[in-house]
Parts: sequence; C-alpha cells; structure tokens
Amino acid sequence: MVYNPRHMKWWGWGDVEVDFNSEAHPGFWPFAKAQLGIEGDAPGAPLVLLDSVQLPETIVNPRFLAELISALDSNQVCDSRYERVIHAYGKGFRDLFRLRRGSAEGAPDLVVYPENENDVLVTLRAAAHHDVMVIPFGGGSNISGCLERMETRRMAVSLDMRRMRRVLAVDAESFTARVEAGVFGPDLEEQLGLHGMTLGHFPDSFLHSTLGGWIATRSAGMQSDKYGKIEDMVVSLRMVTPEGVLATRTVPKSSNGIDVNHLCIGSEGTLGVITEATLQVHPRPESRLVPAYLFPEFEAGLQAMRECVRKECMPSMVRLNDPDKTALSLAFKPPSSRLSQAASKIFKRYLRVRGFDLPRACLMLTSFEGRKADVTRQLRQVNAIYRKFGGVSLGSSSGRSFEATKYDFPHIRDFLLERDATTDVSETATVWSNILPLYQATMKALRDGILESGVPPWSGCHISHTYRSGASLYFTFGFMQQRGHEMEQYLNVKRAAQQSFIDGGATLSHHHAVGTEHLPWLSADISPLGVKAVAAIKHGLDPDNIMNPGRLQPSQHPFEEWSQIASAPKANTKAKAARASHRE
Amino acid sequence: MVYNPRHMKWWGWGDVEVDFNSEAHPGFWPFAKAQLGIEGDAPGAPLVLLDSVQLPETIVNPRFLAELISALDSNQVCDSRYERVIHAYGKGFRDLFRLRRGSAEGAPDLVVYPENENDVLVTLRAAAHHDVMVIPFGGGSNISGCLERMETRRMAVSLDMRRMRRVLAVDAESFTARVEAGVFGPDLEEQLGLHGMTLGHFPDSFLHSTLGGWIATRSAGMQSDKYGKIEDMVVSLRMVTPEGVLATRTVPKSSNGIDVNHLCIGSEGTLGVITEATLQVHPRPESRLVPAYLFPEFEAGLQAMRECVRKECMPSMVRLNDPDKTALSLAFKPPSSRLSQAASKIFKRYLRVRGFDLPRACLMLTSFEGRKADVTRQLRQVNAIYRKFGGVSLGSSSGRSFEATKYDFPHIRDFLLERDATTDVSETATVWSNILPLYQATMKALRDGILESGVPPWSGCHISHTYRSGASLYFTFGFMQQRGHEMEQYLNVKRAAQQSFIDGGATLSHHHAVGTEHLPWLSADISPLGVKAVAAIKHGLDPDNIMNPGRLQPSQHPFEEWSQIASAPKANTKAKAARASHRE
Repeated sequence: MVYNPRHMKWWGWGDVEVDFNSEAHPGFWPFAKAQLGIEGDAPGAPLVLLDSVQLPETIVNPRFLAELISALDSNQVCDSRYERVIHAYGKGFRDLFRLRRGSAEGAPDLVVYPENENDVLVTLRAAAHHDVMVIPFGGGSNISGCLERMETRRMAVSLDMRRMRRVLAVDAESFTARVEAGVFGPDLEEQLGLHGMTLGHFPDSFLHSTLGGWIATRSAGMQSDKYGKIEDMVVSLRMVTPEGVLATRTVPKSSNGIDVNHLCIGSEGTLGVITEATLQVHPRPESRLVPAYLFPEFEAGLQAMRECVRKECMPSMVRLNDPDKTALSLAFKPPSSRLSQAASKIFKRYLRVRGFDLPRACLMLTSFEGRKADVTRQLRQVNAIYRKFGGVSLGSSSGRSFEATKYDFPHIRDFLLERDATTDVSETATVWSNILPLYQATMKALRDGILESGVPPWSGCHISHTYRSGASLYFTFGFMQQRGHEMEQYLNVKRAAQQSFIDGGATLSHHHAVGTEHLPWLSADISPLGVKAVAAIKHGLDPDNIMNPGRLQPSQHPFEEWSQIASAPKANTKAKAARASHRE
Repeated sequence: MVYNPRHMKWWGWGDVEVDFNSEAHPGFWPFAKAQLGIEGDAPGAPLVLLDSVQLPETIVNPRFLAELISALDSNQVCDSRYERVIHAYGKGFRDLFRLRRGSAEGAPDLVVYPENENDVLVTLRAAAHHDVMVIPFGGGSNISGCLERMETRRMAVSLDMRRMRRVLAVDAESFTARVEAGVFGPDLEEQLGLHGMTLGHFPDSFLHSTLGGWIATRSAGMQSDKYGKIEDMVVSLRMVTPEGVLATRTVPKSSNGIDVNHLCIGSEGTLGVITEATLQVHPRPESRLVPAYLFPEFEAGLQAMRECVRKECMPSMVRLNDPDKTALSLAFKPPSSRLSQAASKIFKRYLRVRGFDLPRACLMLTSFEGRKADVTRQLRQVNAIYRKFGGVSLGSSSGRSFEATKYDFPHIRDFLLERDATTDVSETATVWSNILPLYQATMKALRDGILESGVPPWSGCHISHTYRSGASLYFTFGFMQQRGHEMEQYLNVKRAAQQSFIDGGATLSHHHAVGTEHLPWLSADISPLGVKAVAAIKHGLDPDNIMNPGRLQPSQHPFEEWSQIASAPKANTKAKAARASHRE
C-alpha cells in the first residue's frame, strides 16, 4: 500500500483546510496592527489561481524520461502543473510571496516518487547519464531556499521521498530504529510508539517535514536540550549518490578515520539522497510537565539557564522570550474567561509587589520529561535555580497553551502576507558569554534594517536549544510591506540579521540550513578552505553536478547573486484563489 | 620559554627510567607464564644499541631544506639519529618489535618542531612546493601504525607539535577553552586546573599523548561515558593544510551545511595539521568515588550496564572485565598483607555462599564524579541496579589500585616483549544487542588464531565506553613467540580479531584509529563510497599528497600490502642496550 500524505497548500503553510485561526487568538491581530502600524482589516494581497501561476518553460530530456519510465511505475512520475508548483519552493517569505504573486520559476520539470532505494539509484544513475539535475524533496517545509532550481539549462527533477516511510526495524535492546528517510514526523512517532519508543525530535515543522529533510539540513527539535540535534541522533545511514550507495555501520561510536556520517548530514541534497537512517530512540517518557515562568528581565532568565548548565539539570525544553517576544506570546493567548481575567489582574499586582517592571518581564517556557522520580527531582532543582534569579512560576497553563499551538506559528507568515505584511525569522547560535551582546546588536540591526524602508519595526527573540557551551537565538521580525519593493525590503532586513550574526562571531543558522538565503555567509562561517573541502566532496561523489546544483557553493560574487533574487516576480494577480481548485 | 617534555624511550613505552615494576605486581609474571606456557625467567630478546639501529637512507631535498632553514630557528630542525628513530614509529607491537630488532625503516629524514601556526604553514607550503611528505607527530603513542612513513621516494618530515602547548583562553561562562594542539595530557589538565576546569579526557595514553593526536585519531578517554569522546568535546578547530588554514567558529551547534569540524577530526594527518581547538571543558568535580563490583557472570554485568543506560544513570566510567580479564586483574594486584589475605579468604567463602562460581565471576570497575549530592544519588541508583543483577560491592580498594596503576598497562607490552612473548590489543564498538555474540565470536577467533602457531592462547576482554546504543569491546591477547615468525604470528592473530569485528557487524576500531593496522577493513566499515568521499577531501585539501600519504586510502590489494609488512626486519641484534646511551 502506498501511504501518501497530502502536500501542504501550494501557496502557504499547512493543510489545505487549516488557516491561522484568529478567533482562537483574538489578541494577535490587534497586537500586530499596533506594532506594525497597519490600518484597516481586510486581506490585501489576492491569491492567484493555480492555473495562472507562471511556470518555467518545461525542459524535457527524452532519453532520460524513457529510461525512467521503463524503470518506474507510471504513478511514480508526474509532470502536472499542480505537482510542479508544489515542488517549486519551500515555505519561506520569498517562496510564498512569489507563489502568491503567481510565479513558480523555481519549479522542476518532473516529480518522481521513489518507493525504495533502487528507485532512487535508478533515477540518479539515469540523471547522471543524461545530464538531468535532481533536487531531493521531503515535506517541502524548508524556509532557507533549499528547494528551488538554481539553473534552467538542464531538465530538473524533484525527487519526493514521501513514499519511503517505513520504520524497518526497532532494536529495543540497543534503543535504535532503522527508518526510511521519507517518513513524516507524526507517522514516525506513531510507528515508534508501537514499540514504546520516541525519537524525541519535534521541530516547529514536525507535522510537515521528513526524517531525510531533518538530516540533510541538520535540524533541531524543540527538545534538543535533552535529545540533541538530529546529527546527534543518527547512528548510521545510507545515502544514494550518482556514484553508488554510501552506507555506514550501526555502531555507537568509531575511530575509523573521518566520520563519513557527517559528510552526509547537512549535505542539503548536494551529494545524494539519504534513503534511510538508523536512529537513537528513547523509551516514551513516563512523565511530562510543562511549567512556565516569568523573569523580571532577559538577563536574569539567561543567568538562570546557564546555572542549569552548570548544575547539569537543564529541562528537556527551555525557551526564554525577550520582552518583545513575551508581548507577542501574551497577544497569542487563547480567549480567557472573566474569572481568569480577574486572576490575571491579581497576579499582575503580585508581580509589581515583587518588583517586576512588567514591560521588561520575560516569559520562559519549559518542559520536563523522563521517569517520574527524575522529573520531580529535576523540577525541584530547576525551581530553586529560577527562584534565585527572580523567576516566578506561572503554573502549567501557559505551557499547555504553548503545547496546543506550538505547530501553528508558521501560519502567521501566511496570515500577515494576506494583509500586506512581511514576517520571517533568522536564527543562530553562539556561546553563553556572547549571547547578550549578539542579541543587542542583532535587535538593533533588524530594527535599523526595517526602518530604512520607512515602516515601524517589530522584532523579538527567544533563546532556546541549550548546550554546555551556548544556545540558539531565534529572531522573529515583521513589518508592513512597501508596495513594489517587498522583496528588496525583506532581503535588506534578512541581510541585516545575517550580517550581525557573522560580525558577532555566531553562525549563519542553528537549524534552518544554508540554502540560498544564507549562502553568502557560508565562507565567513566555515572559512574559504571549509567551502573548498565541501566542494571537494561534491566533486568526488557527484562529478556531473546533478545533485541540487548551486547549493553549499557560493559563487565569486555571492552577495550580487543574492540580490538578484530580489528582483520581484512579474505581477500576475488575476483573481482570488478558488481554494477548492487546489485539490490533488 | 620552550617547554619540551621528554620523548618516551625509543624502544618502548614510557619515560626512560620507568619500566614495568614486577615487584609491585608480584602475581603478574607467574600468571603470564602459566597462561602463555612460558618456561624460565630470563629476559630473552636483547635490545640493540641506538647506534646500531638501521635507518632508511636519508633523502635530502636541498631546496626544501634551504627554505625551511631560512624560516625557522636552528633548534626547530633536527636530523640526528636519535630524533629520527624516536619519530619512526608509534608504540604498537609491530613498532616495538622492529625497533628492538634494530630496524627503523619507518623513520623520517628530518624532524621539525613548529612553535606557532605560521611555522606549520611555512613548513607545509615549502613541503608542497618541493614535494616533501609530512607526518604530523603528537606524543608518538599510537599503536595502529599511524606514524611510520609509507613510501621512500620523497623526503619525509616528522612534524612534532609538542612546543605548541599553551591554553590560549578559557571562557568560564561558556565552559570552553582554546588550546594549542601539541599539549600533553598532564600539562593540559594542569593549565585548565588553574581555571578550576577539566577536559575530562583520560585515555590510557594520557601521560604521553597530545590533544592534536587525540583529535586526529578520534580518541576516547576512560570517562567517555560522562564526557564523551574527543569528537564530542571539540567546539571548533583550526587545521593548517597545504592549501591554507581551515578554521571553524566557536559556536555550540550549527546548521551551516556539512560540518567541516568532522572533516578534520579523525583525518589522521592526511589533510593537514590540527594546530588548535576550542574544547568543551567542565568544572573540576567536587566529588569522586571509585567503587568496584563483582558479578557472578559476564552477561549479568552486561545487563546491569544496559539497565543503567535505560535509567540514565551511567557512572562516569565503567569497565566490565570478562572472566579472563578478571583473572589478569587479580594477578595484577599489588602485594597484600597477611590480614588482607585472610579477609580475602573470608570474602571468597561469602561469594560461594552467594552462589558465585568464582572462575566465571567478572570484575566491574566504576567511577562516579560530579557534584557531591549528584554522586551520592547516582551511586545509590547504580548500586540498586547492580544488586538486582547479582553484583556484589568490593568497596573502593580495587578501584583505588586501578586508579594508581591505570597508566601502567602499556608497559606490559615491553615487559613481555623482553621475554619473547607478544601481547597487543584490538578494540571495537557495537550495539548492545550484538555485544555478547561479538564477544564470543572474537574470543574464539583470537584463540584459534593463536593456536594456529602451536602455542597456548590467552585473550581477555573488557566492556567500557558506554553509549545509549552500545559500548566498546576491548580485547587483549598474548602468546609465546614462534622464533623467526614473530611478525606473521602477530599479524595472523590481529587479522583474526579485526575480521571478526567486521564479520560481526562492528567497527574496525573504537578509539585507536585506522593507521596501517586496520586499513584493510576500512572499505568494509565505511563502504567503498565512504572511502571515495575521504579520498575526495584529501584531493581537495592536499592535491600533492604530501600529508601522511598512504593512510585512510586502502590500495587495490590492501590485504596483500598488509601481509608484506609481515616480512620481519633483518636481524640486527648486536648487543644489549646500554640505556644510558639513549639520552636526548
């Protein structure tokens, strides 16, 4: 049986019937309007019909096609308009803006759905033989521009991995699971659940992203504090390249020279297609708590986090919002009863008595999970540390409300896009001693960048994904669009954030990958010789440069190339979308 | 000031004045004699004088030498017989056997001592320019054959890193330390100690190995259960290659494409010279306990270890000896008083009452360290688990005796070599579910391999270095030498162990590197395409193949090449060594 979960809507995030539910978050739109200086309520930018979306002229390589069709079933090869549009981009601002304006210039010529490793091998060999480029595709949730074709000289194939979705084996004694790479988050957790196991990897994109995508982009889940990033979970893997299959052994650690697992992890589709991985899994936790806290200021929260590192008692998730992100979180709250409104007033009074200056207060979300006795003990230890730094417990209701809506955040991008506002994110990681300076510099850079286009700036940040040596900083930014210059405006702001990361000694991304969005900074991040080393691997495993070409290899003038992307697509907004027409 | 710790003795392990102290271990020699069927007591194999050691004909590249001498101080460049012999090999059986028989065919033509990164860069550039090969050298403690020159066509330089030994910076807030790669274990810990920190990396070679060596070989320390392997400790690094410097950023984690740190870690000197690394460090532990246990049998000990994984309470070190290794450990005990002999008798009686069949009993050494409260709690938890699987506490005396002598084990190789017996080790790692089958198969393979040469076999194993998915198996083997066929005999046994690892799904080495000893199995371990990927990086960063050539790249006929190494060196045993003549 072919399990074939639906694609997300072609013009935005999530299932076709799911939109951002502003009634469930009544405070959000008024907050956004006030912050971004938006007047009026009606959705502004109309959606085009699928039939009106402009696709690149199809390039057909008949010999490749013949070879492919003789090897695969007809239902594995598609070239419909819908399939091409769906596989054109990921879901970042640039992607959605272009699609909504009717441009899918990044679309492939063909979509192939392999059902096993041999299908992948056959496709790659045929592609190498006939000079066709291949872009591996998981859930299509990437927001760093990893998926659009970067050249139009050759036929382009999007290799959609979703039919390779099985958990092949679970070794309960060794806590490992062998899994096909096309499996989506919920499906994976359901299959592992039958063995009482969990992977513990819950990125924001969980509902719509795949194991192979996580590995190819070095993804991090919300509970990476406990379970690590995806690169920490991969015990072994198989990657099909144009030169054959690279396969490593399922051993916990080795001293067998350069660790070739790490050549495949983070390769962003440039070397081959990750077809399966054996992963570290964990018994489902007995107990799970989600307490939230309020800190009198950002720095106090940071100090509390670092003290948990020192005492080795970090919760399985921590997310410290800065004051701006705290205000957004409060605006995002579900509608509250009269009673809870009254309680909230009392609580605010209590906080003032405790010396809180409320506009500077910072919300800290946490989760604890594991064996019951361990969770209880750890919570006690963390509570003592948080109290020492002025943290006040908010109980579990904020945490529960976060849990209930944690996969909804990406919908905001669409909601605001429909209202002529741009929002996106830039995230990084740095050492503890550098978090505060980097935070301040990047907030300033973001706001200055937005102000340049003459609109009110909004930005906020949360600190999450902690490690002994540091943590991730996740910046969200938003602003009203300057009509006709939306793309330049976005790129200007995005560039400000990225440049601030690199100038401040941090990395170009903590878990969103390089893609096109971060490529100009790669050389500064891993050094020119690092880029050369990556190119050398590419040359060895993909000598014909058919795998996701143009990625991980900045050109001589990467910033100029990057800015060229800014040229807005030709307007093509004929009508509002009839959403019923977007069915598969 | 140039800090210049002494080299180990050229013919064996350790400081010149330190030998295996058989009086401190009165039971060892009788045990070894009985096990290996050795008769008589006198040391057999005589040592040659340094002056009689055969060196390869010196190759001098005058242009290279001129360039080098103009750039470095005269005390940084040495070509004395002593220096060449010291840098000829590591300290494995093959190395020491050849040296003791007067052969140093693996010796370089020149030894260079860089004092900073620029010295390294200058040397590598000159070498690339004039086609000279360079072998990076740390402490010279490697036992996998990573150090001898593999070709005699070109001039060979050993680049000894010991003068680059400084801790450059400690970031106490982020628990990181920036350290030059030539620092030795004790020196590093002393410098970190000034900041109240420890790296937590204590390999058996600790006294005589360097940070750069650890990183280049993917080393593991005794407490890797708590602190991880060296690859888990590297936050960023700098590696000088013939093409320039590869440098990564000091960030906790990233999603910047392929992780180029991992191209350098484990590169075994084939790409360049690791000159510094920023490492994860830890506050010195408040408390440290070293309890030992006895389990009624090997499998029970294994089950107890795995239960600690499940309960997330693994000690900072565990080492479960099989019955043979347990017998060796008991034979290794320091001389005991009458009183303790009496106590020991009583204890043995107690064990029999508890149902122990003593020849099947297994010694488990552990250590616990960290904050006092955590250590106490963890010890309680582990004790409960061990009891459940029949473990009996032995108190701390065995653990203390292990701590006191833990860096002495390599001396046994020399002690036995002097008595015409061969001993060495092979270690690997596998998943929990495979440990017992692999253990049984490898013990059989080792004993069969030894028996083939008609001498009594001895082998033993300990399980250590635990991970969620598995652990390391460390086999020690020994046998009487068959005169005139010592090398073939060793290679035959070594091959049996390695082939058993690979046939049994395990890896070629857990922490001793590939070198020459394990090269024939590399392709089976990381797949032919993995080898190709490694070759591609090499080609990109070292296009002239000057860095440690011949390593990490199995030839078309790796086993034949490996066997050729077996041809014993020409006998050159003119006299016993006058050790006074080996001074620097």
